[in-house]
Amino acid sequence: MLVRNLWLDVAPTQVLTLIAPPEEGGLPPGAPMPGYASSQVLESRIPRFSRGDIIYASSGWEDYSVIDGKGYWDATKVSPGVSPNLAVGALGITGMVAYFGVTEVAKPRPGETFVVSAAAGGVGSVAAQVAKVLGLRVIGIAGGKEKCEWLLTEAGVDGAIDHRGGNVASRLDELCPKGIDIFFDNVGGAVLDLALERLRPHGRIVLCGTTARYRQTTSAPGPLNYWQLIMVNGRMEGLLGRDYFDRFPEAIAALKGWLDSGQIKAKEDVVVGLENAPAALGRLLSGENLGKQLVKIADPSP
Amino acid sequence: MLVRNLWLDVAPTQVLTLIAPPEEGGLPPGAPMPGYASSQVLESRIPRFSRGDIIYASSGWEDYSVIDGKGYWDATKVSPGVSPNLAVGALGITGMVAYFGVTEVAKPRPGETFVVSAAAGGVGSVAAQVAKVLGLRVIGIAGGKEKCEWLLTEAGVDGAIDHRGGNVASRLDELCPKGIDIFFDNVGGAVLDLALERLRPHGRIVLCGTTARYRQTTSAPGPLNYWQLIMVNGRMEGLLGRDYFDRFPEAIAALKGWLDSGQIKAKEDVVVGLENAPAALGRLLSGENLGKQLVKIADPSP
Repeated sequence: MLVRNLWLDVAPTQVLTLIAPPEEGGLPPGAPMPGYASSQVLESRIPRFSRGDIIYASSGWEDYSVIDGKGYWDATKVSPGVSPNLAVGALGITGMVAYFGVTEVAKPRPGETFVVSAAAGGVGSVAAQVAKVLGLRVIGIAGGKEKCEWLLTEAGVDGAIDHRGGNVASRLDELCPKGIDIFFDNVGGAVLDLALERLRPHGRIVLCGTTARYRQTTSAPGPLNYWQLIMVNGRMEGLLGRDYFDRFPEAIAALKGWLDSGQIKAKEDVVVGLENAPAALGRLLSGENLGKQLVKIADPSP
Repeated sequence: MLVRNLWLDVAPTQVLTLIAPPEEGGLPPGAPMPGYASSQVLESRIPRFSRGDIIYASSGWEDYSVIDGKGYWDATKVSPGVSPNLAVGALGITGMVAYFGVTEVAKPRPGETFVVSAAAGGVGSVAAQVAKVLGLRVIGIAGGKEKCEWLLTEAGVDGAIDHRGGNVASRLDELCPKGIDIFFDNVGGAVLDLALERLRPHGRIVLCGTTARYRQTTSAPGPLNYWQLIMVNGRMEGLLGRDYFDRFPEAIAALKGWLDSGQIKAKEDVVVGLENAPAALGRLLSGENLGKQLVKIADPSP
């Protein structure tokens, strides 16, 4: 297919493509940066897609791409009524990971205490709100006052911890006096250890990302307190969205319903212009983004 | 109850009682070492026990103890036909942990590759054999030729790795060319990282013990490769036997059936005499024991 790329899905894991040597799957010099995008089909030799379709697919940081519809998961048509920005954000891989991480990996029970790191980021902001919809007590950890303010006033979480503004350990103790039932971790590093230390019996840790180590060239240490999993019969489980590919329609329907009713909000941090895509990735890595980091390239043709 | 202690259940975690300061649950100077034992009741004010009963209970390193039948789990009567040594070994906490770790935490499917560390120890030797009975391909990691020989000839595992005798990483690659489905970990440390690196999609790590860190006064590093759990949608789960207390009769019946039919063997490393209990604990820590480490104090009175 020849496609016009509309919105780029910028994700922290993309930095790994830049760091890894080509022989380990890294990007060879001169190649376009790969990534998911919502795109409009201009020409298609793939039977299930036709000219004019809006699709969500593995594409690249280009105005136009020639793609085969394959990738980490296959290209899908964006459902009618879903805007191309939502398709790469709250209703894209980001939203799928948040939805299945909370519902299937964490397996929450109403009233439990749910803590999420990078809570104002793409996955975190959806996970925090899904957890609220499901009746959990939600504490978000984020960097900076603006993010914490957004979490409290817009996302409606029960508590926010600014990891730049103070002692995360003592704030966790204050906000989770009985400990943590579920920790949804996008970051790793020191905060994961603090959560392990406070994990309640049968507590669960959803491993979604480890941004704390993406930029480290030397090996980052593992979680010192992992043995707490024995003490509390706890579970730490990794989450890759592709496991749930067949169930994406279910998750999209649920999330779209909550978005339409205003129960959850799709927070987006939009950078305009393909030439600004590297800066958008930089925003993610420095933690400047509030909500899902997107790059807008173009509007679809009618 | 006043009881005569018969057999002591010596477990690596007991060393933690010696290391911890009294304010953190450590043993105060002069106090008797606590521990599980099979004992004979001499006098009882607890209605469910009577003089002559053989029980399995939290007791201590003493000839005689006065106990209340409470503890990490409550005192139980040893079933008729179960010898007082089996009651503290393959049919005691050790056996329960092995049984439920394999059946309930690992949730194995026949044909999967199951690797166990400290495979010739108390829990490991039972776990390895239960896994074999359930149709798994079992690789045991143990220290020394004698243990590996026992694993191959007596326990009937499919492969043994002597961690004192060579490169564990390359031996794992040889014996698990497709990776590891289940790692039953009694040790932690470097071997846990090797297993994480080789974990297959939807692989499971049963965390049973972390003997590698029991004697370390400085904090031992956590598993560097924990993030592999994300890459393979893996699960690492802690195991405490007490969760399954209500189901001990089921496990005892299953294990006793396999012991009686010869499908599994209760390997015991017996030190005779209460005065040798400290040496027995020392054997565990230096890895000299082959099988469950026990101390025999006395035979029951008829």
